[in-house]
Amino acid sequence: MSLKTPKGTTDLNPDDALVYEDLIDRTKNIFKLHGAVPIDTPVFELKSILLNKYGEDTKLIYDLKNNGGEECALRYDLTVPFSRYMSMNKLKKIKRYQIGKVYRRDQPSVVQGRWREFLQADFDIAGESLPMMADSELVCCMNRLLKTYNIGDFVIRVSDKRILYGIFEVCEIPNNLFATVSSSIDKLDKMAVNDINKELKLKGLTDKQIINLNIYIQKSGTVDVLDFLRENDVYKKCSEAVDDLCKLYEYCKIMKCSDHLIIDLSLARGLDYYTGMIIEGKYLNKNIGSVAGGGRYDNLIGSLENSSYTNTYNVPCAGFSIGLSRIFSCIQKPKVNTNVKVFISASGKLFLEERLKIQSILWEANISLETFYNKRNNPGEHKKYCVKHGIKYLIVVKEEQYNKGFVTVIEVNTNLENVIMIDNLPSHLQ
Amino acid sequence: MSLKTPKGTTDLNPDDALVYEDLIDRTKNIFKLHGAVPIDTPVFELKSILLNKYGEDTKLIYDLKNNGGEECALRYDLTVPFSRYMSMNKLKKIKRYQIGKVYRRDQPSVVQGRWREFLQADFDIAGESLPMMADSELVCCMNRLLKTYNIGDFVIRVSDKRILYGIFEVCEIPNNLFATVSSSIDKLDKMAVNDINKELKLKGLTDKQIINLNIYIQKSGTVDVLDFLRENDVYKKCSEAVDDLCKLYEYCKIMKCSDHLIIDLSLARGLDYYTGMIIEGKYLNKNIGSVAGGGRYDNLIGSLENSSYTNTYNVPCAGFSIGLSRIFSCIQKPKVNTNVKVFISASGKLFLEERLKIQSILWEANISLETFYNKRNNPGEHKKYCVKHGIKYLIVVKEEQYNKGFVTVIEVNTNLENVIMIDNLPSHLQ
Repeated sequence: MSLKTPKGTTDLNPDDALVYEDLIDRTKNIFKLHGAVPIDTPVFELKSILLNKYGEDTKLIYDLKNNGGEECALRYDLTVPFSRYMSMNKLKKIKRYQIGKVYRRDQPSVVQGRWREFLQADFDIAGESLPMMADSELVCCMNRLLKTYNIGDFVIRVSDKRILYGIFEVCEIPNNLFATVSSSIDKLDKMAVNDINKELKLKGLTDKQIINLNIYIQKSGTVDVLDFLRENDVYKKCSEAVDDLCKLYEYCKIMKCSDHLIIDLSLARGLDYYTGMIIEGKYLNKNIGSVAGGGRYDNLIGSLENSSYTNTYNVPCAGFSIGLSRIFSCIQKPKVNTNVKVFISASGKLFLEERLKIQSILWEANISLETFYNKRNNPGEHKKYCVKHGIKYLIVVKEEQYNKGFVTVIEVNTNLENVIMIDNLPSHLQ
Repeated sequence: MSLKTPKGTTDLNPDDALVYEDLIDRTKNIFKLHGAVPIDTPVFELKSILLNKYGEDTKLIYDLKNNGGEECALRYDLTVPFSRYMSMNKLKKIKRYQIGKVYRRDQPSVVQGRWREFLQADFDIAGESLPMMADSELVCCMNRLLKTYNIGDFVIRVSDKRILYGIFEVCEIPNNLFATVSSSIDKLDKMAVNDINKELKLKGLTDKQIINLNIYIQKSGTVDVLDFLRENDVYKKCSEAVDDLCKLYEYCKIMKCSDHLIIDLSLARGLDYYTGMIIEGKYLNKNIGSVAGGGRYDNLIGSLENSSYTNTYNVPCAGFSIGLSRIFSCIQKPKVNTNVKVFISASGKLFLEERLKIQSILWEANISLETFYNKRNNPGEHKKYCVKHGIKYLIVVKEEQYNKGFVTVIEVNTNLENVIMIDNLPSHLQ
């Protein structure tokens, strides 16, 4: 029998799990600040719901073995299950968050922080919205999150699927190549331009198409990129999208979240369902890819509609995911990470029943504690344990003191010793 | 395309998800009070690790489809993955908690709170322990949890696998029937005695064996059950276990958690891995089965040992699971459940940019809020929304006031209106 976790998955030891708990709490608090409510969906979905959503990556979906029931598969992201939830309940609007693990049967890479099971935190605004109002809130919320993790400087790159398609049209790239050209371009932040161009050539683009494309996709900046687009042929193809991005930038300035914002025409996002603004967040000077990504997907919820219904139900939607597993890999882990306040030791004898009694009193007073379970009662060792784990107080049960109703309390940092009446322990330790 | 969740699974809407969040927080706080630390393991495991652990229920394990890699399956519980974690890392002791979903391809039943995907919270004490010290802490911790959920009166039933096997020996039941007789007896709290006896007869027991068995398995109480065992033939077969239960009861009295404790000889626990004390928690007057269960499993971690190692590694262990999905189904859901403090409305015009500015100021001050995204700005409707969702303050942007740097703040409960300078909003609302 092989004692390991499945390929591409990992355990969290207590130190790591505590860092994750803190990461999840901080993320949740910001989602709640933005007025979002939680939902939860199963870890697996009917396979039919996941098909035709993820482009070339559909092959990465994990199927469950079918023992004569429904065809099911592990969720690939939290966006499609959320859309299924909306459509199933015919909801018109919601601002929701969801934090959960997702599954991709990809080639794992520890260096690049790519796992087959990883934790995502999703934030989505569904429902009719004034142009760019929800979209700019995504920037604002992502900006607040990337700041709160305290990992270093970051950028938030935005573009718009409609602009990308406008560029493709102007470069005379045939429609049937849009998806595959998008996915090549999307690699620009991790691959050299020359290599991208070689890939595009292999995919059937002419030199002229590639040269034209390069004029656009290397443009990134702020208002200058918008000015460039306005003065260019492409503007006729996607004027609304360009004006929208302009508005987005303006709203972000009002909400004081434009400092890290970059308009980047190389941004492409691989998934099939985006229809408008697209967004990615990335820490600078970190050897991992983007840690957050999303965009507007105005047709996904409607497309899930059962064909037996009239086709009028649809909800415009925009959102993003934070890759918490990637954030985790960038975080400086704290050395001492304990929730425990007290360790109960004993001198000479085991004093089991006495320790049980003290435990019970402290627990009743909501004071977290540890004690020893085996026969090795060594207050010296226990003190070292307290120092190592950041436990503040060491209680030592001693026979003579105990018989009079007292125990010794040592403040670990200062070595200060006090003899305290047992009944007064809660007030002394609080 | 079928718009549903897979059979036996369900979504949580925001109201339910918030109740779950609270339930998880309360559970986690009690685990931490007891000095436990979190670990996390993947949702699926290598299939080989899950085999031969769950008796007849092995057939309920969900397999993943194997596309030329490892054979994997969704976890059936959190105990076996925890034991794999211990054995893989050769740990000697830990007190850990883990809260996560587990998967059983059982016949789902909403009435009985039986799902195919459900949430468990596990608490385990691994490592050498003085007899009954860890075991009595399980009672203490379970008692505290069942109290904190505030659902009503409950019992915690305990017994010991060694006593059960002693009873079987005295009743001259052949060894090879121990497992199947156990699983029949385990149903005593949901099936009539006569039906159990019929089942036992079908399984091949003689009338004499059944009559003898009945003498024991209908015994439940406290010290009287222990006295009965001590005066009985069975004592010779399992004196250590009887004395242990006696000690357990004594320790629970010291820790003031014996009020709900019952020693119940019908308790059997179906799983293969229990070796000593077994425990179950159940709310009275609720139409669901047990909400918590566990016991001592001293050989599981050692049994996972790779055969290429020397066979000396093992860690005695005891723990329990709380079925949070079942607890959830008993909880009275609060009517109003929001984290949002402020709603920003507007009078006359949409005042989008003005609202963005106010949003930004309040978010910076850590005040959670909602506003409207579409074109329907109706302060009256927004006020109703605040009442319905327990939102305390309604801010209304009005042109003339805003131009002077002010907005109207309505305290929703009292209808009290104040005109507040925008820069003073954070201090007014905090």
